[in-house]
Order: sequence, then structure tokens, then C-alpha cells
Amino acid sequence: MADIKKLQQLFLDYLEENPWNQAPSGLYEPVNYIMQLGGKRLRPVLVLLAYDLFRDDVKKALPVAMAVEIFHNFTLVHDDIMDAAPLRRGMPSVHTKYDINTGILSGDVMLIDCYEYLLKVNASQRLKQLVSIFNKVAIKVCEGQQYDIDFEKRTDVTIEEYVEMIKRKTATLIAGSLALGATTAEAPEEDIQHLSAFGENIGIAFQMQDDYLDTFGDPQKVGKKTGGDIIQNKKTFLILKAMALAAPAQRRQLETYFSGTHFDETEKVERLTLILHQLNIPKLTLQIKQQYQDEAFRHLDAIHAARPEGIATLRELSLSLIGREA
Amino acid sequence: MADIKKLQQLFLDYLEENPWNQAPSGLYEPVNYIMQLGGKRLRPVLVLLAYDLFRDDVKKALPVAMAVEIFHNFTLVHDDIMDAAPLRRGMPSVHTKYDINTGILSGDVMLIDCYEYLLKVNASQRLKQLVSIFNKVAIKVCEGQQYDIDFEKRTDVTIEEYVEMIKRKTATLIAGSLALGATTAEAPEEDIQHLSAFGENIGIAFQMQDDYLDTFGDPQKVGKKTGGDIIQNKKTFLILKAMALAAPAQRRQLETYFSGTHFDETEKVERLTLILHQLNIPKLTLQIKQQYQDEAFRHLDAIHAARPEGIATLRELSLSLIGREA
Repeated sequence: MADIKKLQQLFLDYLEENPWNQAPSGLYEPVNYIMQLGGKRLRPVLVLLAYDLFRDDVKKALPVAMAVEIFHNFTLVHDDIMDAAPLRRGMPSVHTKYDINTGILSGDVMLIDCYEYLLKVNASQRLKQLVSIFNKVAIKVCEGQQYDIDFEKRTDVTIEEYVEMIKRKTATLIAGSLALGATTAEAPEEDIQHLSAFGENIGIAFQMQDDYLDTFGDPQKVGKKTGGDIIQNKKTFLILKAMALAAPAQRRQLETYFSGTHFDETEKVERLTLILHQLNIPKLTLQIKQQYQDEAFRHLDAIHAARPEGIATLRELSLSLIGREA
Repeated sequence: MADIKKLQQLFLDYLEENPWNQAPSGLYEPVNYIMQLGGKRLRPVLVLLAYDLFRDDVKKALPVAMAVEIFHNFTLVHDDIMDAAPLRRGMPSVHTKYDINTGILSGDVMLIDCYEYLLKVNASQRLKQLVSIFNKVAIKVCEGQQYDIDFEKRTDVTIEEYVEMIKRKTATLIAGSLALGATTAEAPEEDIQHLSAFGENIGIAFQMQDDYLDTFGDPQKVGKKTGGDIIQNKKTFLILKAMALAAPAQRRQLETYFSGTHFDETEKVERLTLILHQLNIPKLTLQIKQQYQDEAFRHLDAIHAARPEGIATLRELSLSLIGREA
């Protein structure tokens, strides 16, 4: 099997077969709403792909795929409240469509529901391991969100701290999806570790790519205007690297632009992008991204007991995510 | 053992030995804050009491007691946000002391932490059962909170619906604490069912007592002014029963007072209390409470494999909670 489109469809069918139809609708309707908003379903597909590396009966991993997708959407619901984000995937976020209390409570029930799905796995000897991995991932994601909030108020965030933050907030769930899928398939412990390390490094590379494209991407290809992160004063890898390399005059300019919101947006984006170019940030970012990507593929190649065609699919999927070229 | 004070102390020692000291402090300090605000520690004591009914080594149930207490406090953190409650146990609620985002995120990590504690139980063959009971309880508590929110906007709530709501919001966690303790002790399934039914009925009786005392209690004994529920337009058992029994003129008075907040509070409490007395609500409430209490004790007496002195302690604890006399 190991065909991404097929696995995606398998998951979508399972999602459709398991709606939240119970009462009270005020609690469960928002769960259906966010779960049906779409998205690439990347994380559940990773669960299924990881399972499929080691075993035939991929449908057995569907409850774990569901747990991971519910968890991901739970974080979107609560994060959107914390970030006061009105939109999610181009539609009203849950707390915008309903209200904040609904967002909190429906999110809570989603988090509990993740564990209900983990219990559905027909591998009870592995249950302790599955719940343990899931908990560690979930806790790290919360910690990542907290660091993200903390960093907004700080002016002395280091690149190492930033990488630790995106590792928790983004990469851990990618790694965890793969680890959970492989654990459900009762894969060898060593292979699970390599898959997980692969996922973590790909997750970091993916975020670096995301940071890169937001400023230096081709708006036509990326599908949105560049400079969004700069306008929002987000301290991404680009800015942190620039601060680390900047000469005093450039640093003062960076700090001035980042200290306020009263600048003309177009001018601010242009000026800052220029400084980033002067400091060679585009190339440096792609180099670091490449390092994480290389490290990821080293772990992927170290996996022993998996089907080669599955490994090839994971490599293809990674490249489509992090970009073959920038 | 089975001495309530000793079990309480055992739990408090365990709590003190397991603080949330890890980084980021913005996430975990609020967890320490709410967990150390005090309270009777009723639910963890119930876990320990239930375990102690069947086995000697009560310390083995401490992680489950912790899971239940963390869960209870998680609901307080998120409910206080939803209810915009500035105080909790006479101190600033978490979102008041910190902010709403902190309340949401620290609450989330607490909910995940419950499952970390369930994993610490040295009874892996029972893990699936423990997580399953915990999930069902947790989901019901969320549903209870949703019904409570829904009922505030409705004018046609029936007494049956109200009982279902308090069953979910309050009684389920009492029942669940007992079921989890007994399950950890690997008690016979039938006894677990009776303990759980005992807890559910005591929980409902406890809430009825609470409703009763809020309006008809002796302020000296209860420790607060009566009439709080009436001032807040809370549709408690008292009011719902009164609406069901009221003659048209009384019903109109009830509805008028409940339709607004522009009344003199003292006059409103006096008038409504008078109507409740005219309709014999105090006696009827205590009768219904007694029915739940009797049902609870029938289940308690049906437990077979437990130590008699433990059963006696549970009975004493219940009576101290729901009141020997009103």
C-alpha cells in the first residue's frame, strides 16, 4: 500500500464514519466543525505510513491516527483563543464562530477523546507505551506554546531557544505521529527511535522553510503576500540569526522596527528584508534547514525492519513538505 | 487503616513530594498555585478509601488519587474562566492571578498530567480499565458543564434534566473516584459497580443539600449569607420544583424575579424564600435528598468483599458531607 492519497482517503472515511453526534450539541457540534475544516491530514497520514512500514493491516492504526488528528485540532482551537486568531483555514475559528467558553470546553473534550481513541487500539500490550508517548508529546506541545508566548515578551531569545521552542511546538507532534504508528505496529524499538528522530528533524526543517518562505518566498507560489511575520514582529529564525550577526547600526535598525507597530508596513518589510539580505540570512537559513534535512534522512536510512517502498514514500512526502528547492 | 485524616495527610505528603518544578515556569507555576490552594481533598481521599476497602498497601493508589485531584482542579481552572469567577477558595482564581491564556494552557497540561499519573499505577493489567473509567468520567464532567451553561439560557429546564446535569457535573467524579480506587485494588466488578452507584447517589444528595443550605441554611452554621443562588438567578432544584408546583400567580412572581437583576436583593431573597416555603419546598427537597441518600446506602450495604470498618468510614464521611440533619 503506502500510497499517500489512499491513506489520506482511508483516514477521511474513518473520520466521516465517526462523527460527534451525541448530546449536548453545544459541546460536540464545534468538534465536528473544526474536524471537518480540512487540512492536509498530514499527522494521521504519518501515523498510517509509519504503521504501514512494518505491517499490512493499516486499518488497525486508524484509531491512533484519529487520536493524533483530534489532538492537533484541539491545539488549534485553544491556540486560536490564545492568539485571538479570527480565522482558521480561511474560515471562522471555533471561538469566533461560537464563543470563547465553547472553544475552551469543546477543546477539553477533544483532548479527552484522544485517549478514548488510543484505547480502541487492538494492541493492549502496547497501550501503556502508546499513552506514554502520547502524553510526552502532548506535554511538550503545551510547553512549546508557553515558550512561544514567553518569547513574544522577551528581547534576548537565542537561536538555540528558538529551535527548542519549534521542536516542541511543531516537530514533536510530527515525530510523535510516526512513533505512535510504528509502536502500534509493534516495530523494533530502535526503528521507532530512528523514525521519531527523522520526524523531529524534518519538523524543524519544515518550520525553517516556513520562516524562510514567509519573507523570501515567491508570493505566486506560496499563495500569500510575503512579510507577514515581519509585520507581526515575530521573532523567527531569520530575525534571531540577523540579530546575532548584525553590526551595531543594523542591530539598532532591527530593534527599532521590532519595538513598535507604528511603521508603514510596506516600508518596514522592505527595509528589514534588505538588512536580512545584507546579512546573508536567506542562504544561511537554507543551509541550516539543509542540515536538519540531512540529519532527518540519516535517521530514515538507519531504519532496518521497514519496507523500502514505505521509506521511499516518507522521503517523497518530506521533500514535498520542506521543498525540493527554495 | 481507613482513617480519613491519615489518608488526607498521606495524599498531602504525596502532593508535596511531587511539585511542578519544571520549565517553563509560566506553564507550571499556576499548576502549583491551584493545587496548593487547599480544599478538603475529598476526591483523592475517596480513591484511597475505596482502595483501602480491598487491599492493605494503600500507597499504591496515590497516583490515581493524584490524577483525580489534578482533574478536579483542572475543571476549577477552566470553569472559573467560563464563569468569570474572580475568586477560588477565597483567593484569586488562576486566570485572575495570571491571565486567561495561562488558565487555558496550564489547565490543558493538567489534563494531560492526569494520564501521566494513571500510567504510574503498578497494575498494568488494569490500565485499560483505569483509563477507560477516567475518560468516561472526564467526558461526563465536560458534558455537565455544557448542560449547566445551556440551562442558564433556557426557561424550560425540567427537574429530570437538572438531576442529569448535577449527576454529570458533580456526582460522576465522586462515583469515579471510588470506582478508580476499587479498580486499582482489583476489586470484584460487582463491588466496583455498587461503590460507583453509591458515589453517584451521594453526589446528587450532596448537591441537593448544597442547594437547600444556600437558601434555607443557618448562616452561622453554613458560614455564608443565604440567598446567593437566588440573587444569581440560579435554577437550582428548589426553583425548578417550585415552578413545577406553583399556581399561576406564584409562577408569575417567580418568573418576574428570575427575568431580571434590577430588584433589591434582600427583598428578592425574602419574597422568593417565602414562596418556596408556601410551596413546601424545604421539606420536599429534604425528602428527595433522603431518597438519594437511602439509595446510596443500599448500594454501600450491597458491597461484599470489602472490610466492614472501611464501609463504616465511608458512611460516616457521607453523612458529614450531606448533613445528618438539615
